[in-house]
Order: sequence, then C-alpha cells, then structure tokens
Amino acid sequence: MSRIAYFGPQGTFTEQAALRVIDPSTDELFPVDTIPAALDAVREGRLDAACVPVENSVEGAVTITMDSLAAGDPLVAVAEVVLPVTFSVLVRPGTKFQDVRTVASIPIALAQIREWLAEHLPKAEQHFTNSTAASAVAVLNGEFDAAVTAPVAATHYPLELLAGEVADVIDAKTRFLLFRRPGPLPAPTGADRTSLIVFTDDRTGVLSDVLVELAQRGINLSRIESRPTKGRLGEYRFFLDFDGHVAEARVGDALAALRRRSTSVRFLGSFPKADGVASVVQAGNEDADFADARAWLRAVREGQAG
Amino acid sequence: MSRIAYFGPQGTFTEQAALRVIDPSTDELFPVDTIPAALDAVREGRLDAACVPVENSVEGAVTITMDSLAAGDPLVAVAEVVLPVTFSVLVRPGTKFQDVRTVASIPIALAQIREWLAEHLPKAEQHFTNSTAASAVAVLNGEFDAAVTAPVAATHYPLELLAGEVADVIDAKTRFLLFRRPGPLPAPTGADRTSLIVFTDDRTGVLSDVLVELAQRGINLSRIESRPTKGRLGEYRFFLDFDGHVAEARVGDALAALRRRSTSVRFLGSFPKADGVASVVQAGNEDADFADARAWLRAVREGQAG
Amino acid sequence: MSRIAYFGPQGTFTEQAALRVIDPSTDELFPVDTIPAALDAVREGRLDAACVPVENSVEGAVTITMDSLAAGDPLVAVAEVVLPVTFSVLVRPGTKFQDVRTVASIPIALAQIREWLAEHLPKAEQHFTNSTAASAVAVLNGEFDAAVTAPVAATHYPLELLAGEVADVIDAKTRFLLFRRPGPLPAPTGADRTSLIVFTDDRTGVLSDVLVELAQRGINLSRIESRPTKGRLGEYRFFLDFDGHVAEARVGDALAALRRRSTSVRFLGSFPKADGVASVVQAGNEDADFADARAWLRAVREGQAG
Amino acid sequence: MSRIAYFGPQGTFTEQAALRVIDPSTDELFPVDTIPAALDAVREGRLDAACVPVENSVEGAVTITMDSLAAGDPLVAVAEVVLPVTFSVLVRPGTKFQDVRTVASIPIALAQIREWLAEHLPKAEQHFTNSTAASAVAVLNGEFDAAVTAPVAATHYPLELLAGEVADVIDAKTRFLLFRRPGPLPAPTGADRTSLIVFTDDRTGVLSDVLVELAQRGINLSRIESRPTKGRLGEYRFFLDFDGHVAEARVGDALAALRRRSTSVRFLGSFPKADGVASVVQAGNEDADFADARAWLRAVREGQAG
Repeated sequence: MSRIAYFGPQGTFTEQAALRVIDPSTDELFPVDTIPAALDAVREGRLDAACVPVENSVEGAVTITMDSLAAGDPLVAVAEVVLPVTFSVLVRPGTKFQDVRTVASIPIALAQIREWLAEHLPKAEQHFTNSTAASAVAVLNGEFDAAVTAPVAATHYPLELLAGEVADVIDAKTRFLLFRRPGPLPAPTGADRTSLIVFTDDRTGVLSDVLVELAQRGINLSRIESRPTKGRLGEYRFFLDFDGHVAEARVGDALAALRRRSTSVRFLGSFPKADGVASVVQAGNEDADFADARAWLRAVREGQAG
Repeated sequence: MSRIAYFGPQGTFTEQAALRVIDPSTDELFPVDTIPAALDAVREGRLDAACVPVENSVEGAVTITMDSLAAGDPLVAVAEVVLPVTFSVLVRPGTKFQDVRTVASIPIALAQIREWLAEHLPKAEQHFTNSTAASAVAVLNGEFDAAVTAPVAATHYPLELLAGEVADVIDAKTRFLLFRRPGPLPAPTGADRTSLIVFTDDRTGVLSDVLVELAQRGINLSRIESRPTKGRLGEYRFFLDFDGHVAEARVGDALAALRRRSTSVRFLGSFPKADGVASVVQAGNEDADFADARAWLRAVREGQAG
Repeated sequence: MSRIAYFGPQGTFTEQAALRVIDPSTDELFPVDTIPAALDAVREGRLDAACVPVENSVEGAVTITMDSLAAGDPLVAVAEVVLPVTFSVLVRPGTKFQDVRTVASIPIALAQIREWLAEHLPKAEQHFTNSTAASAVAVLNGEFDAAVTAPVAATHYPLELLAGEVADVIDAKTRFLLFRRPGPLPAPTGADRTSLIVFTDDRTGVLSDVLVELAQRGINLSRIESRPTKGRLGEYRFFLDFDGHVAEARVGDALAALRRRSTSVRFLGSFPKADGVASVVQAGNEDADFADARAWLRAVREGQAG
Repeated sequence: MSRIAYFGPQGTFTEQAALRVIDPSTDELFPVDTIPAALDAVREGRLDAACVPVENSVEGAVTITMDSLAAGDPLVAVAEVVLPVTFSVLVRPGTKFQDVRTVASIPIALAQIREWLAEHLPKAEQHFTNSTAASAVAVLNGEFDAAVTAPVAATHYPLELLAGEVADVIDAKTRFLLFRRPGPLPAPTGADRTSLIVFTDDRTGVLSDVLVELAQRGINLSRIESRPTKGRLGEYRFFLDFDGHVAEARVGDALAALRRRSTSVRFLGSFPKADGVASVVQAGNEDADFADARAWLRAVREGQAG
C-alpha cells in the first residue's frame, strides 16, 4: 500500500490529479499544506510519493515546485497528469446567478476566469481565500455566495453546481507530476518525457552548448526555463523537459554528455507523457545505432577492425 | 510631461519602482488595476509609459506580463529597475508584536516571509487581501492588526513600522521594466540588456539553432524561458534576455539572423541594466570588427579586393 | 583584346582548358613554364589572365596552385573549366601497338593509365618527360615510340592517334580556373561557386566554428583542404569551395562572419560552376529574407518597430 | 621477425623513414614499386607492415596513399615518422660544381630545390628519372653528372656528396606512416594522433556536424582533406587527423558519434605523434570525467540517483 501526499487541501485540482495516478484499492491520499512540505514528507520517508503541480499553461512554471526540487535530497517523477483548467462555480442549493453578490477563490482562479465573471457575475464582489477548497467551505458557512473550485470539490461539499467547465482560455491546462524517492524507473513506453535540472557557470554560450548536445542526438526539447540560483551569484539553473526515456541510448548518451559539460545535473525522472504522443527518433539515433557504434568502437580498440 | 501608468494600487512595489524612473518635476504617475490594462493604456495612447514587474527572483517570471507583451501592438522597454524584495510590517500606532492577532497581505507576500512570520508572529492568523496596499487600508480600518506591504506604503498611510526590511530570502529581487510605444531607443551605455520574444515552430533543435546565433557572436544570455503559445499547437515562444544593445553591431547582426531563422521575433527593448555591469565583448565581435568585415565585403563585391 | 597565360607548354590539358574560356577573335594565349610564373605574369600586369589547374579527381588538389594563390597579391577566379582526364596515345604515322617498345609522358599521366598500359602495352618501357607535350616532341624526334598526351596535342604535332580517350578511372576530371586581378565579378547565375582561403590560429574547434557559419546559412561545402602554412607554426590555411556567389546575401553574410572569426580571409572568386547545377537555397536564406531582416532591424533601431 | 615493405626503390626517403621504425636485429626491409602494391602486400599477408608517405608539407597529401587506404581491406597505422625534406646532391668522386652539366631526379625533387639549382647549378640541364635512387644509379653509370637524392642514397652508392641538406623551403617535411593489418594498438602515450576516413552523403552541413562532434569534446584537428569518391556521385570522403588515442574516452566517444552520424568511418590508427607534443585535454573531457558520467548514468538508470 502506498501513502501518497498531494498539495492540499481536499477538493483542489491537485487532489483531482492525484486521483488519476492512484490505485484506490491499495493507495491512500494525504493532503499536505504546502508543496515543499509534500515533497519533504517523501524525502523523509513519512509518505511514499507526492503529487504536485509543475506547470500551468496560463501561469507558467510553478516556481515553488521547481525550487523545492532543486534543493534537498533528489526526488524522481514517475507519472505525469495533465488536467484541463476548468472551474466549477459552487453555490448553496437554490442560489441563482442573480443571488450571487460575493464570489470567493484563490487569486489565480479568479484571474483565470476574469472574463467569465465579467460576463456572468459582473456585480459580484470578489474575495480571496487560501485555497479553492476553502472557498467552498466559506460558501457552505454562508460567508460568501459562490465559490470557484476544482470540479472535484463538488464531491466533498453539499453544494450545487451553478456553472461547470468555466474557463476564459480554451485548452488551459495544468501539469502535475508524482514524485518518489529514487527507485526503479517506469519502463520506457516510446512516448516518454525526461525532466532535468542543469546547473552551469555563467560562461557565454554555456546554454547553447547544452542544447547542442540534445539537438545533435535529435532530442526534442519541450520546455526550458532558467531560474536564478538563490544566493549563488553567477550560477544558473536550467529546467529542461524533453522527449525520450533515460533508458533509451540517445537520452542516456546526452545525459552523460551534460553531466560532463555542466557544473552538475539533477535527474527529475523519465515517465510516460500524459499526451501519449510517441517520440520521433531521427536516423542514426536509434538504440540499435548506438549499439552498433559501441560494438564497432570495441572492435577498433581491440584491434579487430579498421 | 509624461503620464506614466504603473500596476497599482498606490503603495505597492511597482509604485516604488516607478518612482525610480520618473522625473517628479514633469512626470505624473497613474495606478492601473492590472498589468494588461496598464500596457493597453500605453498601446492606446491614453498614457505615455507603463511600469510593470517582469521577474521575481523567488516567484520567477511574471507570466501575465510576458503574455501581455507577446500579443497586441508592440511595446518597447526603455528602463529597468531592480528592487530588493523586503517588506514593511505596518500596524496602527502603538501596536506591539504581542498585540498582533491577525496579519494581512497578498498570498505571495505572506509566502515570501513565511519563516519570519513563524518566528516573530507565530500565533497571528493570516488573511489575504487584493494588494499589499489594500492590507494597509484594512489595518487602518481596524479590520486586521498588521499589514505586510512594500516600504513605499508607509508614505501613504498613517501607520507605524512594526518591522522593516523583512525577508526570508536574502537578496530576493523583483525586476521591473518601463514600457513605451516604439520610439527613439535609449542610447547604448556599454552596460545594456536586450529583451526579445522569439516565436518558432516545433522542429527539433530549433532553440539550439537560436542560441548558437547568440553564442557565435559572444552574446551572453541572462535569461531564457519557454512559454506555450495559447491556442496554437506546435508553436513555441521563447523569452530571451541578453547583454548588449541593438545599436551594437553584434546584437543587431544576431537579431537579423534570428529574424530569418524563426517564425517571428518581437523586440522588447534595449535599455541600461539596473546593475550597470558592462557587457564583455569577445574578440572579433566589436563594432569595429563588423565595420571592417562589411568594408572588406563591399570591396570584394566591387572587385577591389581578394 | 585579352592576353591569357596558361600553364604550358602548348598541347597540354591546360591549353585545352584555356581554349574553352577564350574568345578566339579577341584573346591570345601564352604558354608559361610554371604555375607560379603564370599567376605572377597576371599579378604584374604583363598578361591579363591565367588559366591553371586547381584540382584533379585522381591526384587531388594541385598544391603548387594553392600555395601560389595564398601568397602574393590577390587574384580572383572568373571562370571554371572541368575537363575529363582522358589521354591520347600518339605515335609516328604507321606505328602499330606491337611496334611500341618505349612510351613517354609525365609521371602522373603514366600513373593515371597504368592499367591501360599493363593491358595494351605491357612490354613497353616507360620514360618520363617534362610535360605531356614534350613527350610528343620526343616521339616526333624518334626518341620514344609513343607519347601519352592531352587530346589537344594532336593538333600541334604531325603524329597519329594510336588510342584515344584512354583512362583507367572512368570520370576522372581536372578542374581549371581562370584568374584575373581583382575587378568586376562575373554576374551571379544561380549556379555559382565561391572559393576562399581562411587563415586561422590553431585553437581547438576553430574549423568547426568556420563551418558552422556556412552550415547555419545553408551553404553547401563542396571541397575543404587544410594546408600547413610554410614557416608559420600554429597557423592553418583552409581552402574552401562552396555553392553560391558573393553577391548573394547568404554568401556575403557568411564571408563577413568568417572575416571576423578568422585571422584573415582571401577571396578567390565567385564564378559559374562548370556543371551548371543550381544552388539550393534553404528557407530563410534567400536574398529576400536577408533584405527583410535588414529592413526590420533598421526599423527596430530607428524606434519604428518592436 | 617482421618483414616490412616500403615504397622503394632502395635509397629513397621512404627507406630512410622505414629505417627509423624497424628493429634491425629482427626486422627486414623490402622495397616495393608502388604505394598500392606495398599496402596490398600487407593486406594479403605476404609482408607484415608497410611504410608509406602520407603528406608532404610542400606537395600536400599523397593522394595515392589516401586512395589506397580508403579502399580494400582496412589497414591501421602503428607508427609515424616525419623527415625533413632536405636533399643530397650526389656526384661521381672528383666532380666539382663547374663540372655539372646535367642534373637528374624525380620532378618533385627538382621542383623542391628549384631556387637552389638556379643559384648553384644555373646552367645544368635538368632530367627526370623514375625515382631519386634511379638518378643516383644513372650518375654512377655516367648518364648524368649529378643526382638529387634522399640522404640515405649515399649509403647505397659509391658517390660523393657535392652538397647536403639542400632545400628551398626551410622546415619542409614529409610524414610517413607504418601500416599493419588490424591488431593490438600502440599503447596511448598522451601525445598521440588518430587518423580517420569519414564517408558522408552530400547533405548541406554534414561536415560541420562531424567537426562539431570533435570540437565539443575538445579534440584538436590537425588536418582535414576532402576527396571526391571515385565513381559514387554525391558521396564524400574526409580524411581527418586529430590529437588523441582511440583508447582515450573523449576520442572513443567521438568516434562512436561519428560512426552514427556518417555513412561509415574507417579507422586508420592511433599512434604516437612524431613531434611528441602532448595532447591538451579540456576540462570535462578527461577519462575520469567520462567514467564519472557513465557511473552517474548507470546509477540514474538503476534508480539509485537523481
């Protein structure tokens, strides 16, 4: 049985993501107050895995997740979940649009449906709560009239759905990862993503050198982000996501090259991509090509080939 | 006289940044509710410039600024301000630490001084407000006991400083830019930064190609961030910051190359860096080297050199 | 009227090449003993142009031509001729295969038809002469029985063709260039070649840097050769041939970049390729793309675009 | 006991080079008429090794050696010899400068001392022989007055030295290699050279890609030459010489990469450089760096590191 942390409280998008990766017959979910605390609970062995948000197509990277992963004992992602960011607007049973004078949620949630609110609840006063789930509780208590929540919140509270699938941006998405302590990696599926942090000095061209190592092996970068390193001037951290699994030869070869060419590399996992789109492997970069090259090199070194 | 928007309300860090770039004898400041609205006011000619946050060393890029700059009419940054992120904790006159039972601010501000609060106000209940300035107003109204604000807020409200220069992370900083409609650029100073958005297709290696253009001209990248492009699958946007001014030959040459090699490039400005650290120009990349190469090429083309 | 030198004497392949580029109604040909002397005659203004061999598909680069071009006043190629290397075997009238006891030519010519000689004149003793034409003269004088010559020799001497189009290697070719003092370049035809010498220091990766400048502009390299620089240790010379004309934007831009990135560059000409195969220009590298990028850069610098 | 072929006849520079690499107590030298024949004698097992010239600082690559190495069974170089190209002028005993009316040698030798001849033997008629040694024999026979030979020729023929160390170009050198069938490689010395032929298609940028693989591992290229491939249009062959030994990690890693990225690679050997200058290995490219990277990659793949 696995004990799995998620960035809580109950009723948030992260719970909803966590529900996608657990086996309800054997796993148990535990909400944890903050992302660093969820990750630390895994590092310290109190829990077995942690589900945390890493990227939002509207808000960008979740920097607190990034920073928490860069420091402390390493954690490795084993599963990815991508959820559409559509909200539910919950009210006490019987409440109609014209009855809503106050609407509450976390600032980001209210920001993400700003246009919808302007159109459908133009006169409602907006209030901030500490989580989307907290807004549901506040509506239940009669503090506010409407709560903007993750869809899963409806399963936890006796509230009514005033509006569902609410979103200003069509196709807005949040990406979550499930982290564990280092251990057996998920098997390669042909449609995997690998996530890394590369630490470098501030030499001109250093990032170009890093990306050339990926490009030369035909590895498709899906995300890059530089983050200043706290307290260490002149050191950079680059978060990279790219197609492929470290068990594949081209990815392993690239990782070894990055290890040599940077200050250090932190491996954040190789896991099946949520979108299931298979990696394209360019000519000369298949596992068989690497095996052939190694075999030839061995023969050359042993004086059996020219 | 210039009319300058800032992401308001009064009393926030952005006002404090704006105060650094205005000439109080001729410029007037106008708080604007949201970052997109501040930028639009400039685009539409209602105001002359807008001061907005672009990056926070703890929180990362301000994605709403990034997204607002990528769409709509182009705007160009002409000045950069970097402020240390240290907060003031304001109370009604006479309030002591032991009297504080509630503390209010925006979620990010409370998050950034979490450790300080745990040590100095461990029992205070935390509440969210819509801006740091709003928390000062709420304290003034007796709604809460303490407000976590930008230092500038103390000049707007008759409150007392319970604690100043409060910060968990030493050296946390926020970077602000002042944007105008395209017009005369700030003169090069030798210590400038250029900011760009590069839009590309999703070909493998495309970003490596972009960065090689910078590296080959010895241009030092200070920040890179990829952002998914809303609604357009397979298109990427890269936000790049690097040393140098577009009026300098190596930077102009690199920009022209990027223009040819990408779907499009949006120029976000060349302006003096807040830190004043001069750009290092590598051998062969001085303006004189480009002038010499152009002169030689002209002579070759005109049949006057070999 | 042009006075054109060729690497003589009369009756050699180089005369045959020169005949391809002259206008017999206005040009006059002058054989010159050595390649350096032919080039110097042009440098010093005694003659107007010089036709010299530069490369042989069997023997490789003609190093004496390369070295003569690298030093002294610059010369620029304006025309290219490629001749198949097939020899004529000339004898005194009436001589049959079985009568041939001695065969003469320059060492390279005898080497290039070694297999043919082994099959058709296995018992003939081989002798060296100073030029293929000199072997014809020697046969005329009765000194030897057969001469291995350029086909053109048959027009100069009253000898009979024992065998024509003799060659061991099918498709062996020699490439000749016609050099002038710098002056108006041949107009671009869309199927041109540009020839350069790049002088560099011996820094690791310097040639990779040079070739990346060509590759990034989609310029197709057709030949590269490194030559030690006489007397200057640690300096390298690279002879490069690639598709395109210096009047084309991508080629001019690449040349200016090489000028900045190397110790020096010597331009050896842009001229129509003998094979007439049009250059392939990759997306983003057309003249129009460079013009668009320059126009955009100008607008950015003048504050008229973002 | 080894039986070693050299490009003969006796008394040439190649014999002189061969004498440098043999153990006179156990090895026996055999002159062979042509370079291909010398190499074939080794391929077919009739002899154990062949010493052949590969490059001359005045004449460039010895293309017949290059071509012979590119085809047929692979051969691997195990030793390098570099000889200064200075000639001996040999005469019958008692002959003085003023007595020399004819001087004989191979065309290349006469060309390489053209200036010396113009100064010291301006009136001597020049004649070609099939080898430098053959000119000595011809002088012995009274056919000519002076022979231009390799210094070693003086040990074979009862002739007198009219002038020694004759050379127009100071520091002209010829480089020789000793080839064997594939077998145990010479041990790395820290000052080694590796020689390769890389076969590629004619894709634009393909050579740039090849050289980037070397540059990225800090491998210093000492020679590159492109040669058209006989009979196969659109295929290129690049001869590369660079610092380092295939037993070293950075070189082996580069070779494996080239194997994957080209049509094929032919290994021509890793052997001590004649000049004994140690390879410079850049940071991150030491054997220990590769070992560390491999160990880390293994740990990551086995789930024991992040």
